[in-house]
Amino acid sequence: MRFLVGPVCVLLILLREPACGDWKVSAESVNPCCYFPCQNQGVCVRYAEETYECDCVGTGFHGENCTVPAFWTRVRQFLRPRPEALHFLLTHFSWLWDIVNSTSLRDFLMRLVLTVRSNFVPSPPTYNSKYSYLSWESYHNLSYYTRLMPPVPLDCPTPLGVRGAAGLPDPGLMVEKLFKRKTFRKDPQGSNLMFAFFAQHFTHQFFKTANRLGPGFTKALGHGVDAGHIYGDNLERQMQLRLLKDGKLKYQLIDGEMYPPTVEEVPVTMNYPPHTPLHQQLVFGNELFGLLPGLGMYGTIWLREHNRVCDILRPLHPHWDDEQLFQTARFIIIGETIRIVIEEYVQQLSGYHMQLKFDPVMLHNTPFQYGNRIALEFVHLYHWHPLMPDTIDIDGDTLTYERFIFNTSIVSHYGIEKMVDSFSRQNAGQIGGGFNMHSVLLSVAVNTIEASRLLRIQPFNEYRKRFNLKPYTSFREFSDNEEMASQLEEFYHGDIDALEFYPGLLLEKTRPGAIFGESMVEMGAPFSLKGLLGSPICSPLYWKPSTFGGQVGFDLSILLAE
Amino acid sequence: MRFLVGPVCVLLILLREPACGDWKVSAESVNPCCYFPCQNQGVCVRYAEETYECDCVGTGFHGENCTVPAFWTRVRQFLRPRPEALHFLLTHFSWLWDIVNSTSLRDFLMRLVLTVRSNFVPSPPTYNSKYSYLSWESYHNLSYYTRLMPPVPLDCPTPLGVRGAAGLPDPGLMVEKLFKRKTFRKDPQGSNLMFAFFAQHFTHQFFKTANRLGPGFTKALGHGVDAGHIYGDNLERQMQLRLLKDGKLKYQLIDGEMYPPTVEEVPVTMNYPPHTPLHQQLVFGNELFGLLPGLGMYGTIWLREHNRVCDILRPLHPHWDDEQLFQTARFIIIGETIRIVIEEYVQQLSGYHMQLKFDPVMLHNTPFQYGNRIALEFVHLYHWHPLMPDTIDIDGDTLTYERFIFNTSIVSHYGIEKMVDSFSRQNAGQIGGGFNMHSVLLSVAVNTIEASRLLRIQPFNEYRKRFNLKPYTSFREFSDNEEMASQLEEFYHGDIDALEFYPGLLLEKTRPGAIFGESMVEMGAPFSLKGLLGSPICSPLYWKPSTFGGQVGFDLSILLAE
Repeated sequence: MRFLVGPVCVLLILLREPACGDWKVSAESVNPCCYFPCQNQGVCVRYAEETYECDCVGTGFHGENCTVPAFWTRVRQFLRPRPEALHFLLTHFSWLWDIVNSTSLRDFLMRLVLTVRSNFVPSPPTYNSKYSYLSWESYHNLSYYTRLMPPVPLDCPTPLGVRGAAGLPDPGLMVEKLFKRKTFRKDPQGSNLMFAFFAQHFTHQFFKTANRLGPGFTKALGHGVDAGHIYGDNLERQMQLRLLKDGKLKYQLIDGEMYPPTVEEVPVTMNYPPHTPLHQQLVFGNELFGLLPGLGMYGTIWLREHNRVCDILRPLHPHWDDEQLFQTARFIIIGETIRIVIEEYVQQLSGYHMQLKFDPVMLHNTPFQYGNRIALEFVHLYHWHPLMPDTIDIDGDTLTYERFIFNTSIVSHYGIEKMVDSFSRQNAGQIGGGFNMHSVLLSVAVNTIEASRLLRIQPFNEYRKRFNLKPYTSFREFSDNEEMASQLEEFYHGDIDALEFYPGLLLEKTRPGAIFGESMVEMGAPFSLKGLLGSPICSPLYWKPSTFGGQVGFDLSILLAE
Repeated sequence: MRFLVGPVCVLLILLREPACGDWKVSAESVNPCCYFPCQNQGVCVRYAEETYECDCVGTGFHGENCTVPAFWTRVRQFLRPRPEALHFLLTHFSWLWDIVNSTSLRDFLMRLVLTVRSNFVPSPPTYNSKYSYLSWESYHNLSYYTRLMPPVPLDCPTPLGVRGAAGLPDPGLMVEKLFKRKTFRKDPQGSNLMFAFFAQHFTHQFFKTANRLGPGFTKALGHGVDAGHIYGDNLERQMQLRLLKDGKLKYQLIDGEMYPPTVEEVPVTMNYPPHTPLHQQLVFGNELFGLLPGLGMYGTIWLREHNRVCDILRPLHPHWDDEQLFQTARFIIIGETIRIVIEEYVQQLSGYHMQLKFDPVMLHNTPFQYGNRIALEFVHLYHWHPLMPDTIDIDGDTLTYERFIFNTSIVSHYGIEKMVDSFSRQNAGQIGGGFNMHSVLLSVAVNTIEASRLLRIQPFNEYRKRFNLKPYTSFREFSDNEEMASQLEEFYHGDIDALEFYPGLLLEKTRPGAIFGESMVEMGAPFSLKGLLGSPICSPLYWKPSTFGGQVGFDLSILLAE
């Protein structure tokens, strides 16, 4: 079945098919796939001039544009609760959840959360920034971030397909007017700076854009929780960082406390300003961790933890060489990380009363695919810079960004304990809703928007559909803030379907009392959970005591908090 | 639970536990894992001096050495048919299979074959030649062949753990006495040379040992059916081989027929003897395909097929650029390959009356993992050189190996049609049973045995157990040939448990009327099917018409023979 855009569109308009209701077929020939005609994850294939085909196989839909649900799809659609209702349920009725959390219903629901969420993420991965169709190259070449939805075809009239023809807003102006902080708005869920720096340090093991290759490429070929921020993203760096004795990482002692060594002792690339003396350049797995003392703090904590784990393993396995101690400690660190992220970090982020649980066994014997590929959309979505406050308070001192950024002496000056204490007391900002990004960070948002156009990321509403969310029909539905709505209307010439991906996520109205809006949760959670549970350590043959050096090591991964 | 080898072994001997019956505990301290105490895929972890622990999690067994079956394991063991019985059933009663093949029972059985076989192969992969324990490095570093069973620990008394202490046979002598052909024995299943060269050309896309790194490393980072033998194993080579127009590969025309270009026109590395003139060096994806005209023939056929597919795709998709035509044609070629391998090649090899079927949908919604990693054991197992006859007959001419090897003019001199015709008429040799390897090829077997010792591959009987086969108890049970049995007894000092992996596979008694013995089938099939079905093109989001450029391309992948 192939279709001419013109007649089909007319037909669909006659049938009041919303998917096609406002296509604008121009007089000149346009690649029909620029209109995103295929719904419900149907794949658009272009044929000779102005014809296309939607491949609906596996979507549960059929028809020209994959809009006609099969019987079971209808049943599922009918039974599927609205995300809003689910969220309300999960964030209210704490008495009910107190009961659920102590029963096996918790496991059942957790498995459901994991499978439903991760089913949104293709695995094996599909597209990337070069390939808007499936190819061996995009499957095999790990240098690319993958993409959930293909880039807008290059021969489309606009970077958004056909939307935004009247012009897209100037990124600098939009960020200035809609992203820039007016007064600090703290996260109503109560997240603190400890949380904010955790987010930053954790995600930078897999968000490492290879700018030399371009914004669609990554340097972190582990594509997930490989603890590359601790061990480096390549073997050469890892060997430099390792003590090569007892499995440990190199360190220095300051006043009897363990800190990372400096570039003087461990000559690996670190991104410090050129004037920084070598003996002040602390060394981390991630070359960027000198940027902020919050990152340096976490880097130091993990260094200590890795070496502590080695101290636990060595007497148990006196015959193990450095290599086996190191590799096993690394797996324990990865396990600890995933557990902390799910049971503490995501728990905090979700605001759910349901107690989340890290138990990989839940997914054994399901069609879940182990393995992960970081998606460009996940990278863009995770620019959570509104978390950052106006100033950083440590131990009674108030530091401006000028004093905080690349300040290499803070970690050793205050010490880890005081930093943890202070960061635990200071509020982080609300991420969603706009008007809450500190002015020193605005350029990040500008760059993100510019990159998204260069990489031809599809419009926000297309992503809403991809994640089973209703596309917004107006800016007033999108935002409950009058200034936001009217400014966006002006910027996007009244066309809600031209709203771009990143502004959509960051400026959407927040849920009541929440850190961000519906889209961030519904789009972010799948990437996150798929990445966490897709780790090889969660697979049936890995998830057992021997992988972690025996029960003692296994317990470190799974029982940390208990 | 940890155990001292000595007392436990005594206890087990008292209990007549066969797994431990003949352990020899020496007076000096030996790594207990050298005895392979853990049964049923339990993982041996060494603790302080002479203690160890078997991790039985997920094996279906418990007890000190994972020898006590759980209830459901017992039921499954009881219900599981013996491989011999199954093989007999599948290779007899053709009238019954004629019926089965026309019903949906065929699909049911095929799914069963695929899941049972591929369940033997760990995915994500586990060990490699450096890591006898799970590690991030062995998961992440694609340069290694993976390994199904860990290498024998380095601190064991012998390369086989504790076996072979009396000395292992000289590889040269053993190959001379037991592998070397006496008189040509044709494959009783009737395989021809067309089959033999198919095996060779097909497997050399994923068997490409990186000798510079060592025998445990590979150059073929695609780890499976990526058609790297057609397109090269890296992007640079691929770009050299491509015409960069209409998706096609470069070619030359000789008498109006399409052949690969020469090194003169396409300057990529090809392994020809130094004296070969450049204009006679044909260029293939695989740098070794100049070695034998049989490989050159298949290389030429696939070149023609790729370009033919491009010619089919282009008029359908006039807007597609060279890249999209190339990538889509590559997927179609991969699909065609997998179908041919399963429905024709493996069908021939199996001798089954059951008609095998390539239908990836069968595994959708099962816990099957897409992705593959080539195992060292698979590489060793697939040294099927007895297939090669004494001389090669083409179009009435009889060629010795001297005239055949690196003869670059044969392909264009005879032409593809005559080669295919001749190779289809000449018998290939029986692989199993010994005494059937042509003398020019013996060094390959010698090298394989030497590599297996260097890489510390576990004994043949350990692999028998790993694949649910009864370990052999004597050389006379292993071979029904008196000369073979008594020679092996002498070589291995009467210790059947010292028999090595590769000799075990090649010298085992063949099944009646079959090309090789039980072990080759039971160990080879899992690697093979996992590799074929583990291709990303078989995964739910890939296996649909649009991936192959629409229904026409999809049909090329799935309906080739019909």
